[in-house]
Amino acid sequence: MLRNCAMRLRTLGTTPARRPGAARRLFSSEKVIRKDYALPNPSWTKDLRLLFDQFMKKCEDGSWKRMPSHRQNPTRAIQEFQTLFVDSKFKKEEQMSKAQQFTRSFEEGLGFEYAMFYNNVEKRTVSLFQGGLHLQGVPGFVHGGAIATIIDVTTGTCAISEGIAMTANLNITYKKPIPLLSVVVVNSQLQKIEGRKLFVSCTIQSIDEKTLYTEATALFIKLDPEKPLT
Amino acid sequence: MLRNCAMRLRTLGTTPARRPGAARRLFSSEKVIRKDYALPNPSWTKDLRLLFDQFMKKCEDGSWKRMPSHRQNPTRAIQEFQTLFVDSKFKKEEQMSKAQQFTRSFEEGLGFEYAMFYNNVEKRTVSLFQGGLHLQGVPGFVHGGAIATIIDVTTGTCAISEGIAMTANLNITYKKPIPLLSVVVVNSQLQKIEGRKLFVSCTIQSIDEKTLYTEATALFIKLDPEKPLT
Repeated sequence: MLRNCAMRLRTLGTTPARRPGAARRLFSSEKVIRKDYALPNPSWTKDLRLLFDQFMKKCEDGSWKRMPSHRQNPTRAIQEFQTLFVDSKFKKEEQMSKAQQFTRSFEEGLGFEYAMFYNNVEKRTVSLFQGGLHLQGVPGFVHGGAIATIIDVTTGTCAISEGIAMTANLNITYKKPIPLLSVVVVNSQLQKIEGRKLFVSCTIQSIDEKTLYTEATALFIKLDPEKPLT
Repeated sequence: MLRNCAMRLRTLGTTPARRPGAARRLFSSEKVIRKDYALPNPSWTKDLRLLFDQFMKKCEDGSWKRMPSHRQNPTRAIQEFQTLFVDSKFKKEEQMSKAQQFTRSFEEGLGFEYAMFYNNVEKRTVSLFQGGLHLQGVPGFVHGGAIATIIDVTTGTCAISEGIAMTANLNITYKKPIPLLSVVVVNSQLQKIEGRKLFVSCTIQSIDEKTLYTEATALFIKLDPEKPLT
């Protein structure tokens, strides 16, 4: 729903830092201690590795960009977001510093294994996704809620290329169940902008594109600092 | 998406066992080793405990029923489901025995803390839900995918009262972000049946009903053993 905003916007390069170089310095120092989960690990199947390598090749000319992915946001990004959009009564919870990004809260291989790639010219985001054994719905298949999650994450990345935004609607049609541990391609495209509304479409297909598992549309609303969320 | 079917159908009491008493004996012996996650634990806030107690009172006259919730399905339920609905090529994976129910794969208090209650006369299901710190989307709030998940689970329980079914569509409108660790009420209602189609509505509200966080509709399709899923 709400997009993992400030940090990702920096990655997309759409928000200028207040002081030139400040964002880059922050990112460099934090990179040392913050693991990037959008990189191959031993749980990845051969299919996922092959696809990842193909997309990394597409990144070489700069048309595509791999999106890093972390378990926790940088403190500064959280503070910036809260200052802009969250009412003061929600800011004080100290335990919130222990919160973790939903999709990165699983042990290696058991949850959402994915890498996301963004194309700024085409306004497209592609996630290569392998659903681990702890994402089970019915025996042997990925839970519908886990599928909704990877759709929200992927379409959201299309949306925040236009500014900090939150999900207003997800409309998901499940056509075929996705087997656990299989690799699928989540393809999303920014379709239209109307004022603060951003319309994004999404499909989930098998690698050979012969099976359409899921279709979805998503509506995002750009946030307005004049209107706190809570 | 696909409903956690055979086991839950037994809980709802809608599927007769092949031999009288067989299902009950299976359930009793498995109960000893399988933890029921839909019961209070130390991570539950006072709000969640109070609501839980209120619903347990409603269960006393039999109008409402608390739905037990497990991390893994009983082996027999998995086999029954796979025999009926899954093509043979998907049945052989031995690692699938290590799979876990998505919503129950988190450590106590960090993920989906919820208890679900079902009213067979009103065809309603209510989930009392507290989103833990590992369900974070934007800083301080529950991820939209986690919200979609609790909606899928709750509406699905309404649907399977009519037979084994899978989610065909979820249409979710996010109106307000849900703060992490707050307790919300997920209320779903079977609205209409047309052939194999089951239409279910859903809202997520604050305990005092003053805040409407999310609205959704869900469409489920009853499964047909003549048409395997894969």
